[in-house]
Amino acid sequence: MTFRARHLLGIEPLSPSDITSILDLADSYVALNRRTIKRADALAGMTQINMFFENSTRTQASFELAGMRLGADVMNMSMAQSSLKKGETLIDTALTLNAMRPDLLVVRHPQSGAVNLLAEKVNCAVLNAGDGRHEHPTQALLDALTIRRAKGRLHRLTVAICGDIAHSRVARSNLLLLGKMESRLRLIGPATLMPAGAAELGCEVYEDMREGLQGADVVMMLRLQRERMDGGFIPSEREYYHRWGLNADKLACAAPDAIVMHPGPMNRGVEIDGTIADDINRSVIQDQVEMGVAVRMAAMDLLARNLRAERGLAAAGGQYV
Amino acid sequence: MTFRARHLLGIEPLSPSDITSILDLADSYVALNRRTIKRADALAGMTQINMFFENSTRTQASFELAGMRLGADVMNMSMAQSSLKKGETLIDTALTLNAMRPDLLVVRHPQSGAVNLLAEKVNCAVLNAGDGRHEHPTQALLDALTIRRAKGRLHRLTVAICGDIAHSRVARSNLLLLGKMESRLRLIGPATLMPAGAAELGCEVYEDMREGLQGADVVMMLRLQRERMDGGFIPSEREYYHRWGLNADKLACAAPDAIVMHPGPMNRGVEIDGTIADDINRSVIQDQVEMGVAVRMAAMDLLARNLRAERGLAAAGGQYV
Amino acid sequence: MTFRARHLLGIEPLSPSDITSILDLADSYVALNRRTIKRADALAGMTQINMFFENSTRTQASFELAGMRLGADVMNMSMAQSSLKKGETLIDTALTLNAMRPDLLVVRHPQSGAVNLLAEKVNCAVLNAGDGRHEHPTQALLDALTIRRAKGRLHRLTVAICGDIAHSRVARSNLLLLGKMESRLRLIGPATLMPAGAAELGCEVYEDMREGLQGADVVMMLRLQRERMDGGFIPSEREYYHRWGLNADKLACAAPDAIVMHPGPMNRGVEIDGTIADDINRSVIQDQVEMGVAVRMAAMDLLARNLRAERGLAAAGGQYV
Repeated sequence: MTFRARHLLGIEPLSPSDITSILDLADSYVALNRRTIKRADALAGMTQINMFFENSTRTQASFELAGMRLGADVMNMSMAQSSLKKGETLIDTALTLNAMRPDLLVVRHPQSGAVNLLAEKVNCAVLNAGDGRHEHPTQALLDALTIRRAKGRLHRLTVAICGDIAHSRVARSNLLLLGKMESRLRLIGPATLMPAGAAELGCEVYEDMREGLQGADVVMMLRLQRERMDGGFIPSEREYYHRWGLNADKLACAAPDAIVMHPGPMNRGVEIDGTIADDINRSVIQDQVEMGVAVRMAAMDLLARNLRAERGLAAAGGQYV
Repeated sequence: MTFRARHLLGIEPLSPSDITSILDLADSYVALNRRTIKRADALAGMTQINMFFENSTRTQASFELAGMRLGADVMNMSMAQSSLKKGETLIDTALTLNAMRPDLLVVRHPQSGAVNLLAEKVNCAVLNAGDGRHEHPTQALLDALTIRRAKGRLHRLTVAICGDIAHSRVARSNLLLLGKMESRLRLIGPATLMPAGAAELGCEVYEDMREGLQGADVVMMLRLQRERMDGGFIPSEREYYHRWGLNADKLACAAPDAIVMHPGPMNRGVEIDGTIADDINRSVIQDQVEMGVAVRMAAMDLLARNLRAERGLAAAGGQYV
Repeated sequence: MTFRARHLLGIEPLSPSDITSILDLADSYVALNRRTIKRADALAGMTQINMFFENSTRTQASFELAGMRLGADVMNMSMAQSSLKKGETLIDTALTLNAMRPDLLVVRHPQSGAVNLLAEKVNCAVLNAGDGRHEHPTQALLDALTIRRAKGRLHRLTVAICGDIAHSRVARSNLLLLGKMESRLRLIGPATLMPAGAAELGCEVYEDMREGLQGADVVMMLRLQRERMDGGFIPSEREYYHRWGLNADKLACAAPDAIVMHPGPMNRGVEIDGTIADDINRSVIQDQVEMGVAVRMAAMDLLARNLRAERGLAAAGGQYV
């Protein structure tokens, strides 16, 4: 195991070997989760707090199940109705929680960088569950695990990411991860939804979807997030679907065994045709959800090991600080 | 044990022997719950997800406690603020949760049939915690356990169900269960709140409450659910209480040892006089709540056994899929 | 151990030796919580229900973590959206929960006395997590533990409580506790925010903050709770800070080693200058939060022991009622 970090704040600081360590361990948690009795003790006696400053039922559920199955005491903080409303600052909220002696903090926040700021103030491991347009590292890791299990590898694949890339932390973390793992990246979408400097990231940029999908091994659709768009050209749903929605016709441009991904929740008929989403020969969308729990278990397990090592504990646990 | 089903979606598919199996096991869980240390391991290492698309603090709490006391990892999904709001369909939500590999899904939904639909899409056991006007099987089972413990039997009892029967899944599930167990059924209420075809179900129908209560062994009051009434005659609360509210005077028409039931939450002074609700010699309303936790433990225990058997596991657990 | 009560409803009924028992046990839980593996089994197999009729993210979290670390099954009831909205009375809600056989009920309620009323109706231990302007006993206990650890004792200290004392259950419980432990008490604040009869409680009352802080060993700031003020003179935030907000200048009047406390959440720049709140040589505000979890663990452990003794169980547990 080479992953030695205190926190998982983003894909950016990870090495290819860090990523491989997490994915390898996650594979074993996929097997555990498919059993009826699914219980490990990697986090037994440890406290995990989920702080979601943005609602996200599915991501929070995934982290909650991951923690419970590892034996942690898991607590959800409903931050929408928290002390922040009473005028408390983010830092004071963080310090307050830190004083309750959690071991793992899972944080989602609408502002880019808020999770990193918070991580500087606490004594425990922090996992970024999505911050603004910055990063969403466990999403990129679960996507990578899904691709690796479907394709047998991550390198020398042609991965096309389609849609609203400018507003997407999912796209950003995926670009970083897939770049590190030597995939070939293509970005497809309207120019208004393309980040500045995409070409410099080593990506090929396409506005025409059929062109961009030529020979792609992986077709990764993104959610159209109107709530994040501020000004600029926003296509209608109908127009968007016509040009950048994935249907059978456009998918035929990709490699014959291309897989289709979507981080969910899906807008059927906007980003993707329902028939393709449901096609078990092409769509790995349900696999992504399954891999999500396993990847989060792996990440939390590894961070807990690092925490124990830092605190001078035997990896087996049971020792004191 | 004869109960061999995958799901508990309603009373309709259950045989009398299924019902007896559940109630017998529930009796032992009543005893467990009265201890200070109340812990069984029937669901140890299994994942239970509660999906309530309609708020119901008390039913959700009952299922949550039931699961925790059986050792399950229990997760509540607040579906009101879930991905459904982001445009996801019920089926996609179900498939997403299913990919997280739960073993038991407890579902309440405002639409009749939604829980059955969902059960077809998932790989785990589904418990219906109330769907529209269709069924609420654990309520009928807890009512049956309450009656059986108070009266010593379920057959050859005269059970009067009073109130808004047309809109009540509680009434519907109770009618099905009590009919299977050979109780004699009477329905009492305004004609506008009586289901079509009640007489064909083998029930005697009464508009006059005193007449209907003559010699009844069990008086089961229902909650007046104005929020479910659409059009038609709706009596005022005062008028309703005058004609169909249970008071001492009307209760005197029933058998001298008749018991009084209400599924809660009660509207004192609308469906029932507070003095009767609090009379520990007549009212078994608190017992119903207590039996609720035990019946849910029994149902989940039996479904978990069936799940293990289906997956080729020894009933003792610990084996793999 | 001398603490023999059924409930923890307030500081008023506690003896100095009760208080010392709780604080001594809490010290050991502080040590446990600083470990990575923090798990005791004092509440194993017992059910704790948190009923918060007023939102309080931090207090609820503290009780939730305390219960989980003691091995309890902990359930949060979101009372804001509960059956009370459907017309159920507080007593009916309490009886319903009681029928689910909890062992510990943690209750916060906006009305003074509501928790005591509820405690009379149930068969389990009740902990008051704050009721109206009445009491907030675990807050006073955590404050006492914080002071005792910082100062080495509770008696013969000069403690100044500053701010909106009239509306504060925190102040009330602290006055009761510190009085019992023979601290010298001073109340500082605008006359309009001073309770009637403060002088009779054995407190010195000051309107001028510099005067009141002379030689104080402990400076306890309160939260300005505008939402509780009804009529009368309410100073502006700016005026309030000028006269009664704690800054370096005013703090210089206190003893050179005086500690600074605040129950949180803080309004920086209203009750307290941010620099002082963050000064780790003076401020023990984070310690208060840490002591909160430990004190709640100690209180629940002791109540559980009393419950077991009352029910005729060996303290080791595992026996039946």
